[in-house]
Amino acid sequence: MDDSLFNPRSVAVVGASPHFVSGGTFFLRALLAAEFPKERLFPINPKHEEMYGLKVYPSLQSVPHPVDYVIVIVPKDATFKVMEDCVEKKVKLVSCFTSGFSEIGNKEDERRLISIAKKGGVRVLGPNCMGLCVPKNRLVFDTGIESGEEWAGNISIISQSGGNADVMIIIGNGIGLKFNKAVSYGNGSDINADELLEYFKNDPQTNIILQYLEGFKTIEQGRNYLKTLRETTLKKPVIIFQGGTTAIGKRSIFSHTGSISGDNRVIEGAFKQAGAIMVKQGLHHLLYTALLISCFQKSNKLFKVGPNLGTILGGGGNNVYVADICSKIGLNFPAFDEEMNEWLKKNVGEVGTVLGNPIDMNAGMSGYKTAIKIMKLMDKIDQIDVITYETDFDWWLVSAKIRQKLDLYKEFDFKGLMESIMDTNVKTLIRNIKKIQKPVILISSQTFYDADIVSKRNELEETFRKADIPIINDMATMATVLKYLIDYKEYILRAK
Amino acid sequence: MDDSLFNPRSVAVVGASPHFVSGGTFFLRALLAAEFPKERLFPINPKHEEMYGLKVYPSLQSVPHPVDYVIVIVPKDATFKVMEDCVEKKVKLVSCFTSGFSEIGNKEDERRLISIAKKGGVRVLGPNCMGLCVPKNRLVFDTGIESGEEWAGNISIISQSGGNADVMIIIGNGIGLKFNKAVSYGNGSDINADELLEYFKNDPQTNIILQYLEGFKTIEQGRNYLKTLRETTLKKPVIIFQGGTTAIGKRSIFSHTGSISGDNRVIEGAFKQAGAIMVKQGLHHLLYTALLISCFQKSNKLFKVGPNLGTILGGGGNNVYVADICSKIGLNFPAFDEEMNEWLKKNVGEVGTVLGNPIDMNAGMSGYKTAIKIMKLMDKIDQIDVITYETDFDWWLVSAKIRQKLDLYKEFDFKGLMESIMDTNVKTLIRNIKKIQKPVILISSQTFYDADIVSKRNELEETFRKADIPIINDMATMATVLKYLIDYKEYILRAK
Repeated sequence: MDDSLFNPRSVAVVGASPHFVSGGTFFLRALLAAEFPKERLFPINPKHEEMYGLKVYPSLQSVPHPVDYVIVIVPKDATFKVMEDCVEKKVKLVSCFTSGFSEIGNKEDERRLISIAKKGGVRVLGPNCMGLCVPKNRLVFDTGIESGEEWAGNISIISQSGGNADVMIIIGNGIGLKFNKAVSYGNGSDINADELLEYFKNDPQTNIILQYLEGFKTIEQGRNYLKTLRETTLKKPVIIFQGGTTAIGKRSIFSHTGSISGDNRVIEGAFKQAGAIMVKQGLHHLLYTALLISCFQKSNKLFKVGPNLGTILGGGGNNVYVADICSKIGLNFPAFDEEMNEWLKKNVGEVGTVLGNPIDMNAGMSGYKTAIKIMKLMDKIDQIDVITYETDFDWWLVSAKIRQKLDLYKEFDFKGLMESIMDTNVKTLIRNIKKIQKPVILISSQTFYDADIVSKRNELEETFRKADIPIINDMATMATVLKYLIDYKEYILRAK
Repeated sequence: MDDSLFNPRSVAVVGASPHFVSGGTFFLRALLAAEFPKERLFPINPKHEEMYGLKVYPSLQSVPHPVDYVIVIVPKDATFKVMEDCVEKKVKLVSCFTSGFSEIGNKEDERRLISIAKKGGVRVLGPNCMGLCVPKNRLVFDTGIESGEEWAGNISIISQSGGNADVMIIIGNGIGLKFNKAVSYGNGSDINADELLEYFKNDPQTNIILQYLEGFKTIEQGRNYLKTLRETTLKKPVIIFQGGTTAIGKRSIFSHTGSISGDNRVIEGAFKQAGAIMVKQGLHHLLYTALLISCFQKSNKLFKVGPNLGTILGGGGNNVYVADICSKIGLNFPAFDEEMNEWLKKNVGEVGTVLGNPIDMNAGMSGYKTAIKIMKLMDKIDQIDVITYETDFDWWLVSAKIRQKLDLYKEFDFKGLMESIMDTNVKTLIRNIKKIQKPVILISSQTFYDADIVSKRNELEETFRKADIPIINDMATMATVLKYLIDYKEYILRAK
């Protein structure tokens, strides 16, 4: 695969439509919302002359410019003619959104469509896919996706499902991830996962590869993929979520992308042996694994992770819960020595707290200065690998809000106090965490749902993310994804 | 236990403080924020005369009114004198927040404190607990808790951890649960879970009991509890989350509430055999189980639940994921007959969708009329027990927002359209779902985090909750908690 496929000079949408609920309006609207340059965007539809302020061309041939990338959203029977037009127009890449091919058992039409493309030297994504998303090029496949230079990162996505690629990007953006390229390849009749992985292995703009995989078109593709996977994981982490791990899931796969999904345990075992991080429980875990890796790659702490935690959190019941979930996964809380316990007793106090590791500080942001001191002490304890701190933004914010509402403390300007936390406390916390040698993960539990709190919590979380300090919203997710990192580290140490 | 304990005529906070970060300010502030009647609220502190506009009394004895409920937040060594004062003042119930007793191995002081109370006929919650929360009485133990008649429901909480009780109420309110009473009993040296469960078994205001349990003070309490549990589950569901299921968790339990936690598998087995719903993965699952039960109790559908789902959702990859997670848990998607498949092909279409069960409609709210028709058809299919529909509020809202921003469709008033969905579409949907005989669960995936979307999503979800139609934010949680309901139903059918 050639790099130019991801950097098309122009895009045509064949089957574009201005109609509210039509599939043909979807891609065009997304490209317009992302501010893809209008002079390089060509809607194709013989029934219209103008659409969203753009000139509409009756056919690809009538476009008076070269066209590199074509998105096809026409009825299935019209796709063959469109593909012939693409060949004639010397299009580089076609993404065929149209479905009704091998995913419903119609292998013949799929072979016919791809054969036209192959003969003409045109590469194809799909059919039955969403195609390309390259945020830095303002090339997106959904209106919800942020684009432009400021949204460009070094994470790339290989996804058989367009919806999953979409959700990965949008939810990923929400937790601080930035993407380089995403490819949804659907039925994968021409370009499949093996070729995409080979490309991303060598792509200097990609540091982390996320993948949603259902299966392969041929056994050979599967073999190529596995070989490439083994080479790739030594260079960059590959995080895979596999769909169709049950009989009913496999039935859904067949009708989704018409892939051969094989025996799941065999596949999972082989991928793991090739160094892939195999995420068990859906896209959220995949994204948070990427978040930890991304932050720790930047701060050079990825290979410092380990199973021994030093943990500051709030609430005795929460403490028990965290101890349970971490310990089930194989993470530990090394006991502190006498000196540390004495320090805690003196500085955190005995009343209403549980000393020991995890530390029940019941403090959150209001006790951040003590938390900094504790983290510095933990940084010196050899038995601790990773430090986690529950920031309690929600409680801090709601408490400030209610005090303000009650007007109980007239001597305090709470609005000012709330703003100052952004300027002073958070800066102090970030400055100090950056000095800590061990990996640090913040936990920001989501307790309150009202828009006001959510918005302020987002602002606070954003500040930390910008400093490459990872924030995860619950301990269970943190524990699971940290374990993935530890396993990956151990694989790399063994493989080297 | 007497009902009057939960309905105190007056509350005194011994050790109340006006200081910003003092523990002694916490409860008073919460009661004031909840608008507990000021004339029945007595801060006690010899060092102050006025606090938050309230008259402060130097001692319990100096309060010129009867005091039913006392919250104690004084240093440990001062608790004995306070307890003697409580006896003299004929207080009914004391909640001792002060810690430093058996949870740090100090059994002697705990025995001494409780013995003063017992001799004097005073009942005690704690020590080391948050005490009572009765929202309808505006009696709360945290500022984040909503109170008043409109927040009163029929769910009650027994929790060893105050923090967990707090989180259950606050997050519970956020997903539509309303509570009757909550009790945090900490070390449980006087009142323990056995007595509380006995009370709630017979409490006509309680239909569902939620419990966070770490262990018991004595073997006898454990036995009493188990006997009561067996009787209670036949009358009302008891949903339990148990802390300390691992060795490290048990260590945390001991330093949290000083309880005996015993062999977890034995306890879990015994509780399950007594008909309790034993939640495996934390408080979120506990709360969503309560949500389903609460909604289905009201609509008389609780005993109609079963493992066979009819599911409408969006996205082929999502489809595979849902099939996988549900099938791992033991839920099924019965295949549709030819007639239904033909109807779907004609009315939903083949392009871009996956026919069959689950149905990939990729429609969300914009396709709600088709969804209603499908749900009505599913209602007639004997093989289907429960209907689930992914509403896609987030996508609908973000799509409307972006269209508005782009000003692409000038012929539509999108703001008006967005508002009208609340008035027309949602009402139509609710009216039709109410006619469906089978249990219906809506899934509202949380994809976008910005305050605007969150706020509008909350509004939409709220409308459904008020109509007792349960909404859960992800399919994995839905599948897990639905399975708990099915198991409970089967237990009741066997036991009857």
